[in-house]
Amino acid sequence: MDHPAALEAFLKAFAAIDAPKILVHGGGKIASKIGEALGIESRYVDGRRITDAPTLDVVTMVYGGLINKQLVAKLQAAGCNAVGLTGADGNVLPAHKRPVKTIDYGFVGDVQAASVNVAWLQQLLVGGATPVFAPLTHDSGSLLNTNADTIASVLAIALSRLFEVRLIFCFEKKGALLDVNDSDSVIRHLPRGEYEKLLKQGVFADGILPKLENAFDAIRAGVQEVLIGDAADLIKNTSEETAGTLIIR
Amino acid sequence: MDHPAALEAFLKAFAAIDAPKILVHGGGKIASKIGEALGIESRYVDGRRITDAPTLDVVTMVYGGLINKQLVAKLQAAGCNAVGLTGADGNVLPAHKRPVKTIDYGFVGDVQAASVNVAWLQQLLVGGATPVFAPLTHDSGSLLNTNADTIASVLAIALSRLFEVRLIFCFEKKGALLDVNDSDSVIRHLPRGEYEKLLKQGVFADGILPKLENAFDAIRAGVQEVLIGDAADLIKNTSEETAGTLIIR
Repeated sequence: MDHPAALEAFLKAFAAIDAPKILVHGGGKIASKIGEALGIESRYVDGRRITDAPTLDVVTMVYGGLINKQLVAKLQAAGCNAVGLTGADGNVLPAHKRPVKTIDYGFVGDVQAASVNVAWLQQLLVGGATPVFAPLTHDSGSLLNTNADTIASVLAIALSRLFEVRLIFCFEKKGALLDVNDSDSVIRHLPRGEYEKLLKQGVFADGILPKLENAFDAIRAGVQEVLIGDAADLIKNTSEETAGTLIIR
Repeated sequence: MDHPAALEAFLKAFAAIDAPKILVHGGGKIASKIGEALGIESRYVDGRRITDAPTLDVVTMVYGGLINKQLVAKLQAAGCNAVGLTGADGNVLPAHKRPVKTIDYGFVGDVQAASVNVAWLQQLLVGGATPVFAPLTHDSGSLLNTNADTIASVLAIALSRLFEVRLIFCFEKKGALLDVNDSDSVIRHLPRGEYEKLLKQGVFADGILPKLENAFDAIRAGVQEVLIGDAADLIKNTSEETAGTLIIR
């Protein structure tokens, strides 16, 4: 979603989805760029951003403000009644600051499906609004940085009590690949048995692994189906004709 | 509201108001600071910020993200179910980009009480939520920078069709002053006739004038009462015992 034209096309297709829907976005690259310009360096441990106080301010600005509100304005222009949210708004995603064990991740929030304010989300969705989530939660006092894929999973699981939920993970590949060097080797259907077999064979690279773990967690917890792939291929298709990786219950 | 302790006290008092309520905030000073750090200079004409594209990004980050979401998180901690909004969220404040006459203000939005999405605001308020507004509107395509006092007036006028509305303008003085050099010369009651007389005498300085104009516009348009003064004096008092300037219908 780094290209304005691709973003425009995505938002138009997303706006056209004729069902209650939620968008969860990230923004790490832009946050790093703005942080750098402000002289605040991004620190990572094991691929995860360490969120110290200045970094929390940067992600609050960039995720909660710049990206979230621009997406909301663009969706409104596309006829979609978007409402931008962090987990603090309406106390919709209460979380816990991650306890310090070997690594202090700083202001990072761990969030559970059971804590989601589902009643308010349902009210928004039934009223025709489309929540747009920045990857921020809170612990009643401070905002907390939370992975966007995790928020998407947690929301999908929480809402699967009330709706049939399709969880879609968009990323830069066309799906889970059988051969990481062949972008056309997309695994179209991935039953759990097959997943576990391929996992043992070491087929899945670092980028896709957390998405697959989130996907199977979501399926186990009641989500109807999960799709993983390129945004352009996914949201315009039904599950039968999708180009990405489909995981069903 | 530049002092953390004063802000904390204000938010606690605000959270304790036992009636449906809305908070509208500004943030010009912080936006200028962040803009400066990013190498984006603030330009003003007649005391009004010129909002070019880079400045729009800065105010979107600072108003819509940093300040708005920090206020929401702090209010949630104080037991107030805050929901942070810009005018784009839920299309609550549709506006028009200000036409270029002698000055091009850039991405600045003019907003009317008649366009406010009152039904949705009412739903939020009746549901126990407290909307917290960043001073941003939109024109279905772009976010727009809009004066916080204007947004407060427009919301008060729009909601006065459904509620008895008290509009409170908080600023760094104790109220409208009879003598601008004497901070204790607060005019406690300001009927329209008296206002017009003092206006002709040139009593009101630049800082208070737009607030008074907004106040009398709001009263004329149906708002029950307007209070102007120091945050610490205003929100804890009833209109009978207030320390600020009271204007009633």
